[in-house]
Amino acid sequence: MNLRELKEITLESNLELVRRRLVIYTWGNVSAIDREKGLVAIKPRGIEYSDLEVDDIPIVDLEGNLVEGRLKPSVDLDIHLEIYKAFDEVGGIAHTHSEFATSFAQSLKPIKALGTTHADHFCGEVPCLGYLSQEEIEHDYERCLGRQIVAYFREHGIDPLRMGAVLAGGHGPFTWGRNAAEAVEHSVILEELAKMAFRTRLIAGRDVEIPQYMLKKHYERKYGPSAYFYQSK
Amino acid sequence: MNLRELKEITLESNLELVRRRLVIYTWGNVSAIDREKGLVAIKPRGIEYSDLEVDDIPIVDLEGNLVEGRLKPSVDLDIHLEIYKAFDEVGGIAHTHSEFATSFAQSLKPIKALGTTHADHFCGEVPCLGYLSQEEIEHDYERCLGRQIVAYFREHGIDPLRMGAVLAGGHGPFTWGRNAAEAVEHSVILEELAKMAFRTRLIAGRDVEIPQYMLKKHYERKYGPSAYFYQSK
Amino acid sequence: MNLRELKEITLESNLELVRRRLVIYTWGNVSAIDREKGLVAIKPRGIEYSDLEVDDIPIVDLEGNLVEGRLKPSVDLDIHLEIYKAFDEVGGIAHTHSEFATSFAQSLKPIKALGTTHADHFCGEVPCLGYLSQEEIEHDYERCLGRQIVAYFREHGIDPLRMGAVLAGGHGPFTWGRNAAEAVEHSVILEELAKMAFRTRLIAGRDVEIPQYMLKKHYERKYGPSAYFYQSK
Amino acid sequence: MNLRELKEITLESNLELVRRRLVIYTWGNVSAIDREKGLVAIKPRGIEYSDLEVDDIPIVDLEGNLVEGRLKPSVDLDIHLEIYKAFDEVGGIAHTHSEFATSFAQSLKPIKALGTTHADHFCGEVPCLGYLSQEEIEHDYERCLGRQIVAYFREHGIDPLRMGAVLAGGHGPFTWGRNAAEAVEHSVILEELAKMAFRTRLIAGRDVEIPQYMLKKHYERKYGPSAYFYQSK
Repeated sequence: MNLRELKEITLESNLELVRRRLVIYTWGNVSAIDREKGLVAIKPRGIEYSDLEVDDIPIVDLEGNLVEGRLKPSVDLDIHLEIYKAFDEVGGIAHTHSEFATSFAQSLKPIKALGTTHADHFCGEVPCLGYLSQEEIEHDYERCLGRQIVAYFREHGIDPLRMGAVLAGGHGPFTWGRNAAEAVEHSVILEELAKMAFRTRLIAGRDVEIPQYMLKKHYERKYGPSAYFYQSK
Repeated sequence: MNLRELKEITLESNLELVRRRLVIYTWGNVSAIDREKGLVAIKPRGIEYSDLEVDDIPIVDLEGNLVEGRLKPSVDLDIHLEIYKAFDEVGGIAHTHSEFATSFAQSLKPIKALGTTHADHFCGEVPCLGYLSQEEIEHDYERCLGRQIVAYFREHGIDPLRMGAVLAGGHGPFTWGRNAAEAVEHSVILEELAKMAFRTRLIAGRDVEIPQYMLKKHYERKYGPSAYFYQSK
Repeated sequence: MNLRELKEITLESNLELVRRRLVIYTWGNVSAIDREKGLVAIKPRGIEYSDLEVDDIPIVDLEGNLVEGRLKPSVDLDIHLEIYKAFDEVGGIAHTHSEFATSFAQSLKPIKALGTTHADHFCGEVPCLGYLSQEEIEHDYERCLGRQIVAYFREHGIDPLRMGAVLAGGHGPFTWGRNAAEAVEHSVILEELAKMAFRTRLIAGRDVEIPQYMLKKHYERKYGPSAYFYQSK
Repeated sequence: MNLRELKEITLESNLELVRRRLVIYTWGNVSAIDREKGLVAIKPRGIEYSDLEVDDIPIVDLEGNLVEGRLKPSVDLDIHLEIYKAFDEVGGIAHTHSEFATSFAQSLKPIKALGTTHADHFCGEVPCLGYLSQEEIEHDYERCLGRQIVAYFREHGIDPLRMGAVLAGGHGPFTWGRNAAEAVEHSVILEELAKMAFRTRLIAGRDVEIPQYMLKKHYERKYGPSAYFYQSK
């Protein structure tokens, strides 16, 4: 993949956030990484989606140095870089302010696995992290948020390829996948799961979690070693 | 009806799920049966709707053997086959992950008959089944789910042509009708009823069921022996 | 106005229900009356909106006799006729199953005047009637419902031109106005008010009614003798 | 800027309310001011958006005298004028009946800062004012409402450029900014924040406010003296 392709994929994935109604104005961002080159393409900061063109996409290295482009990368760049540096198999990352997922993040509540729609995509509850401390926020905010995400996944032994989403407390969702398209797809699905979890809570008066064996069955029939959900493995 | 027509009807009915916003990505599926030939056309597994063409629709017999087509049938095929085998008058089946109906399924709550909109389409509450057991899910999951649906209807003496919908607990809605178009229509209407039931619960603080005589009047003026809702019977 | 114009107005008003997303399939209906001729045009029963053409609109007299057209009038015709016969200034009537207004009807709750948006259009709470009795429903259902609406307005001294809407308990909204376009506009606005009332209840934990003087001010600045909301009176 | 440009900006900003689905029919209005000339362009009263053309936009002076145009200005003109006269840096004002923000206004509840999406745009909770008194409403309603807004901001020492929104109790949102486009943008964003606040309350069972240091960080990284959210300051 050459850098132009990386930028095109990144542009297209950012525009998909708009088409799926997960962002408005300058909200949100998607990045993609070329692991061989160690280079990341990301939405430029403070630009509206409707104005974006492929040459507006900046390329940075894993330390955040600008390698190509005339625009500064997203203000959330360091969050992306921390995730890329920690999780080798992640190829793309998306951040949105989608309505329902953000409402869970604002509530400091995880999105629990309440049904098979959830289990078809995420192997367990989507965690919600606590607020960063005042020091973290005032000192090196975005990097600290990225590190908080990584630390949480490591501490709890969560495989980032089986749980491609997290809620930053008081902020909103970050999702990822093997590539940028999958990262965006996880953002779309997370929002649907959040809608259903919101309504399930109101109908049932509580979270009604599916049994662990049902969660596992649905996740594994799509992604496990004996998966049979797709045409071929 | 030749097999090409069966596939066209099936394709069209699957695409209608997308237009009605009841599914995204690969979620959901619709099938149609040719009762004379004993053959079923169904969405292929793991394929996005936007990619579907008529020759992608596989044809299987009632034992699930592939009769025509190069793609594998939906992973939910056995659920459809159990319903077709048990309910002779069913000509089409639809499965969606529509937001509100799925939220009731996740809550393990039926959608009760709270108004005449419900009574115009379903003759009583739309039942919600419990979770399958671990053994059922690990052994022969999809077939067990189909059998659970059939057993529930038989046990409770429910006529599947007067109740064209069910909620699989923790999963989502399955609907059917005399043909695939009617099955999809039932999915659309079920979602509207679920929205209204959700809101009614929140406004009234409880389910407010209409009297049995009102339910019966509205159902019978459309579908009873003296029906007068349509132009002709 | 000739009968063709009456039919065109009726067709257009019915189609507006679809464009405003207040109905799907065969749900709902709009009628218009020519007071000089004593004739009513109304949606034909059991026909989908997308299939409607101007010559499909039946014309009936105030006793319900078919005067022109080859299709039977809406099954709800007698509800419309009772309202036309009782309220001389009403020129059009609309019936929908719009989501939020129907949810209030199912809850047997009125839509109270919680804000100036409500007061800009309806001079007080939109009443919700109780269920009809079994005898009324089994004997002459639609006529009894029309008479229930008329009786309620007369008994409570409500001016139907200042309150162009009612909720039929367990059923849904009926709205009217000086003509069919205004009837439809009242259906659209009622749905918006119902949405806001639903959310207000959930935010505040109760109905928060505006003071009577605020309700009156907003209604009168649009419709009172010293109205100044529009360009000219 | 000549007056034609002022009218074009005003027209365009009014139409943006429709495109963003914040108003229907004649609801809402946007104005823009030319500070040098001391002239204000505003939506004409009682006109539907779809009928608006640039020459329909009236121009008034700060006392409300019509300077140009054949249509009367919005009935809410005096609210706008009071805000323009009090807050020198405000260049545009928008008023909508957007669903969720209006529901908070009807509930007499502020929209608290529950997340970073809020903090990215408004530096603190969006205040909700109480009902005006009967005397205020009957005497000089619109002017009194404008003055109530101004008095609240002055009394609480709120900088109108850091808090470009307010809820009029029982009525709905008014927003403003350095120009009409920013005023409309604030209306759009306020509605998104209201949606999220509504859902957060229902998920968490209470308002979960973010810490003050987090609110400040997000607001300042966009608008503070060391802001870095945009490409350049």
